[in-house]
Amino acid sequence: MPTLVMKFGGTSVATLDRIRRAAKRVGVEVAKGYDVIVIVSAMAGKTNELVGWVQETSPLFDAREYDAVVSSGENVTAGLMALVLQEMGIPARSWQGWQVPLKTTSAHSAARIEEIPPENINQKFAEGMKVAVVAGFQGVSPEGRITTLGRGGSDTTAVAFAAAFNAERCDIYTDVDGVYTTDPRISSKARKLDRIAFEEMLELASLGAKVLQTRSVELAMRYGVKLRVLSSFEEQTDTSGTLVCAEEEIVESNVVSGVAYSRDEAKMTLISVADRPGIAAAIFGPLSEAGINVDMIVQNISEEGRTDMTFSCPTDQVARAEAAVKKAKEDGIINFHALDADTEVAKVSVVGIGMRSHTGVAAKMFEALSAEGINIKVITTSEIKISVLIDRKYMELAVQALHDAFELEKAA
Amino acid sequence: MPTLVMKFGGTSVATLDRIRRAAKRVGVEVAKGYDVIVIVSAMAGKTNELVGWVQETSPLFDAREYDAVVSSGENVTAGLMALVLQEMGIPARSWQGWQVPLKTTSAHSAARIEEIPPENINQKFAEGMKVAVVAGFQGVSPEGRITTLGRGGSDTTAVAFAAAFNAERCDIYTDVDGVYTTDPRISSKARKLDRIAFEEMLELASLGAKVLQTRSVELAMRYGVKLRVLSSFEEQTDTSGTLVCAEEEIVESNVVSGVAYSRDEAKMTLISVADRPGIAAAIFGPLSEAGINVDMIVQNISEEGRTDMTFSCPTDQVARAEAAVKKAKEDGIINFHALDADTEVAKVSVVGIGMRSHTGVAAKMFEALSAEGINIKVITTSEIKISVLIDRKYMELAVQALHDAFELEKAA
Repeated sequence: MPTLVMKFGGTSVATLDRIRRAAKRVGVEVAKGYDVIVIVSAMAGKTNELVGWVQETSPLFDAREYDAVVSSGENVTAGLMALVLQEMGIPARSWQGWQVPLKTTSAHSAARIEEIPPENINQKFAEGMKVAVVAGFQGVSPEGRITTLGRGGSDTTAVAFAAAFNAERCDIYTDVDGVYTTDPRISSKARKLDRIAFEEMLELASLGAKVLQTRSVELAMRYGVKLRVLSSFEEQTDTSGTLVCAEEEIVESNVVSGVAYSRDEAKMTLISVADRPGIAAAIFGPLSEAGINVDMIVQNISEEGRTDMTFSCPTDQVARAEAAVKKAKEDGIINFHALDADTEVAKVSVVGIGMRSHTGVAAKMFEALSAEGINIKVITTSEIKISVLIDRKYMELAVQALHDAFELEKAA
Repeated sequence: MPTLVMKFGGTSVATLDRIRRAAKRVGVEVAKGYDVIVIVSAMAGKTNELVGWVQETSPLFDAREYDAVVSSGENVTAGLMALVLQEMGIPARSWQGWQVPLKTTSAHSAARIEEIPPENINQKFAEGMKVAVVAGFQGVSPEGRITTLGRGGSDTTAVAFAAAFNAERCDIYTDVDGVYTTDPRISSKARKLDRIAFEEMLELASLGAKVLQTRSVELAMRYGVKLRVLSSFEEQTDTSGTLVCAEEEIVESNVVSGVAYSRDEAKMTLISVADRPGIAAAIFGPLSEAGINVDMIVQNISEEGRTDMTFSCPTDQVARAEAAVKKAKEDGIINFHALDADTEVAKVSVVGIGMRSHTGVAAKMFEALSAEGINIKVITTSEIKISVLIDRKYMELAVQALHDAFELEKAA
């Protein structure tokens, strides 16, 4: 039998009625002849409640106990989903991480999946079980303790199961009906994409399009798992949602696939840094140790042996970044004249695998922003992405202007 | 190191503050030099929520999934308790049933404990762990699935651990401060007992004194586990609460230890039954098959080959009992003239191991009731108990009168 993995997120299983609705979707796939592995999250809100309790016990809690507590939400959903499927006449049973077993490292709260031996579940499929409902987000360490994979870990669980069971596809049911050319709340012209390449999805995800957890997309790319994102709240057909797949499976696409944004960015500039080999390492070493998520980095042209170094990071890390840089100065590791922090910026990016074979994307982007009078503060580029930092107040305008300029409302 | 088992029920761990309070009690015992095994229930209300969800999915749910869902509440408390203890500087970790492992039969939702190998936990004690926090009420079946022991199973878990680890004592922390001579809500003279025999506790528990689950008392009696019932809401000394122990450890006691009652009883009488060998089996077989909890049974003196047969059962089972008896008549299994159901009765009992060596208890009981003008409808006796059915409206009066007559307000 071909195997299908279906993953339902917290809002898709928030109530018994929603679990029933999700179960109906599972029933449709079972009727098509699939052996189905369903990965479930905790009912919406439950994980936050559990995390809140743990945090209240102690600021520096034992991550092993955190995992033991927090993983319980998924167990509840898995059992309920199995019960609802049985009530529909579908042979189903629930599996907790340790029962599969989903083996992970011992890095509690951020464990990595090491192995998913398929034997136990396959044996039940062979005995007539049609659906294995697996509690997402959790596994078991070599020491036999419960681990969790970190927030959004249920997406990763789903993709890992799809890889381990050679599933035909991994369907991620969520509260949006697919991946859009941009955020529909910002541009009413946003269009749902039928297909998107793994690489594009990675750029969109890390840029703030929070549809899929980045790790799950990386894993899908590595193992060639076809991922489909679709809504658990709408009737589905075979072409519903967005398929995240290898570049080769996308026949036609626009040069630019989407416009992403990240609102809470800050731009920090070290003015007049001594320009010498190793200076970047001297600056970004201490920032990394302080846990700052440095994103864009730009070094200006050096004049008379000194240069300006600009980088961006999330707004809420600015204070920590300033402290780290100042301490590095005090310690004599780096030297600069002034530190300038601009916390009123946002990042806007255009993303598309078509850029690899098309030129002129950057020029068109800058032109569109210029036509709206938007000043660009920092630019970075990669093979399939161009990002700019701009004043935050222009963010929505910039997204709309770029969506129009690249005519993303039209399919290729 | 001597081992102590401490069990905290749902109300004792209902909030983080209460868990902290319970943890302080644990800390006191650790300071005395004990290795402590803490058994925890789910936070009050949580199990009911989970059971409600399961029941909503299906009237005839799969008990294996029920267990997987319902056991999650205890896991949460166990993790939180371990975190709070760690925060107090006490080396502690949580254990779920399958991690111990607490091995049970496969009778899901009503599993029996088969074995608790102490090696895993003892190894951690040897490594310096001071407290093992174990999720109560749950275990693992030979098939590797999660089982639960039925309602109140955490008491049973606690006693089983005390037996498996040869604990010095098993302290059951609850929302009452011990076992009383009768319900203090009914008689203001009710007195807390310092000690009570296992046998007495069993009679009191099954008669409605819901302090300890019957199974846990049976288990404690079989393995000679000293049980102490005490309040988690009061400061404790070494003589707090009530010790439930073997008869031999009770030096002095009143002839009668307590007065128990059961409010919602019904008395049913089959009038003019053909009196022949096997008639009792013919009547009570069908009732047993219908799941009726028949309690007292009285057969009147036979006259001319016919007799009246009276039995009691819970009020809410009367309709089912009537149906079962009538069907047995239609099927020709039994024959009687009329069926009389009195649903306005209550049961009152006096219990005491002293009855074994003292006579006149029954006479004194009947006299006390007679002095209040209370008519006795049915009488049954056992070695350490005398029970009567009376009109429900006299129940409180009867309890008070008996408490006075046997002077239970005075210690032996």
